[in-house]
Amino acid sequence: MDTAAQLLEPLCAGSPRALARAISWMENGHPEARALMAGLWPRLGGAVVVGLTGSPGAGKSTLTDQLARALRARGQKVGILAVDPTSPFSGGAILGDRIRMQRIAADPGIFIRSMATRGALGGLARATQDAIDLLDAAGFGTILVETVGVGQDEVDVVSCVHSCCVVLVPGLGDEIQAIKAGIMEVADLFVINKADREGADQVEREIEAMKSLAPARDWDPPVLRTVAAQGKGVTDLLDALQAHGAWLRSHGGLARKARERARLRFETLLAEAALRRVRERAGATRLQALVQSIAEGRMDPYAAVGDLLADI
Amino acid sequence: MDTAAQLLEPLCAGSPRALARAISWMENGHPEARALMAGLWPRLGGAVVVGLTGSPGAGKSTLTDQLARALRARGQKVGILAVDPTSPFSGGAILGDRIRMQRIAADPGIFIRSMATRGALGGLARATQDAIDLLDAAGFGTILVETVGVGQDEVDVVSCVHSCCVVLVPGLGDEIQAIKAGIMEVADLFVINKADREGADQVEREIEAMKSLAPARDWDPPVLRTVAAQGKGVTDLLDALQAHGAWLRSHGGLARKARERARLRFETLLAEAALRRVRERAGATRLQALVQSIAEGRMDPYAAVGDLLADI
Repeated sequence: MDTAAQLLEPLCAGSPRALARAISWMENGHPEARALMAGLWPRLGGAVVVGLTGSPGAGKSTLTDQLARALRARGQKVGILAVDPTSPFSGGAILGDRIRMQRIAADPGIFIRSMATRGALGGLARATQDAIDLLDAAGFGTILVETVGVGQDEVDVVSCVHSCCVVLVPGLGDEIQAIKAGIMEVADLFVINKADREGADQVEREIEAMKSLAPARDWDPPVLRTVAAQGKGVTDLLDALQAHGAWLRSHGGLARKARERARLRFETLLAEAALRRVRERAGATRLQALVQSIAEGRMDPYAAVGDLLADI
Repeated sequence: MDTAAQLLEPLCAGSPRALARAISWMENGHPEARALMAGLWPRLGGAVVVGLTGSPGAGKSTLTDQLARALRARGQKVGILAVDPTSPFSGGAILGDRIRMQRIAADPGIFIRSMATRGALGGLARATQDAIDLLDAAGFGTILVETVGVGQDEVDVVSCVHSCCVVLVPGLGDEIQAIKAGIMEVADLFVINKADREGADQVEREIEAMKSLAPARDWDPPVLRTVAAQGKGVTDLLDALQAHGAWLRSHGGLARKARERARLRFETLLAEAALRRVRERAGATRLQALVQSIAEGRMDPYAAVGDLLADI
């Protein structure tokens, strides 16, 4: 599996090993990455992409795992992407994968991957979008994208999934309002997880209050309650997701989401490519000298960029 | 105050109104923004930039406000930037500003601003860096940058402050580990806030365990305890920050941080400018047609970007 042509068949047959390799290729900019994407593009199957976003401690992983099990029981193959801005150095993402792998055991119908790419502007969003396409081509009918839900890249990612669930939890205090406000406009469903805790009614009142402040939308996001650790409410959540999916299909939502996602992907890749081209033309020595001028206060960064682009 | 020349004097004299306008100019790409930055660049005073990062509910705002008060008591002017990826639609950021403004009252020695720009790649990081320079030029000796601490932009922001405080809180459960791991390598100080709650010892043990797994660093990040709502531990935290500042000065850290920040600023601006140039050359019609091709599955996004760049 050293060329795109060799990787494509096992990938589209759903091989977990091929999938893992393909995701790494895309993350690392492997020379065959572009050919791989070109090869699988005609074979995309229209997977349903569901986002789950919420603050740490809201129980997103547990809820995601329960949803995956429930979808499996309905006969679907499920991909899970945990979008996680942890650094590679800590090994946190890989460790997390292993622990979760053990929980969901060796079911080949579930594929889990933590996305932990960093560094490039928008790199996390790009890598996640690539992984969604790869899982789609590999026959995973539903893809669950789990994010911490506050960074700009993450907002970009969840803004173009088919259904975005905002997961809240009772008792996290007032500051959580900031998060709720930020993703309010992309929320298709609200989930109050750990709903057996004190304060669930208050969280629901807060959600309803915020909804009443928001501009009217064609879709009114329902508020569901789950206790994911006990599997409670998961079937209802799945039904609500399917209702939202049906609504999207009957209201032109799929085409709209496809355009939003296409725009995000195109712009992210274009920004990367444009930067790469400018870097190549300028050369490392000149770039380094400009950074040094800025650091020493001899030149402001806007002037440095202006000068560079005027020359090339 | 309609031109950079007119705005520069009141800005450098510390006028809150001039400062607010200047930050908006930079955020919105006002025609005079570049001239303003060029004008203030020689007047930067070397402000100390402190980052406070941690999950929602950790009490960062309260801690930030307490630090600001304590710095005021030591005679410093303090700028506060709350980096907040909430959307403009909800008004969350502005509302938050007002509530906090009331708390810290009408002290002209404290300036608070929520950074809520969204949309452009790296836009939040760029706007925050601009605001740091503006506050510096306006004579604010310490700038406190408060972030939710998980998005990629936010990691970029805190990775080049002078001192980065990671704020944790007892009792948020296991999943918080993901955040802790991710910002471990940029943490200069750990703060256990709400330390009067049960579980503070356990959080401290977890921090120490993670520190023992991390690569050795010249600076060993101390672990402090605060109860910000009661003002407890704030003076010790300030002393620890000053100790870290002294260490930076004696170990070449200021020059290193200045280079890191210059590189981040330059690369963010360069990516924006390169993308803008490619867009202008390609024209809106062609860009729209490419997005449509991707959305309809006729072309993959890598091929679309490759084709576009080959032509222009």
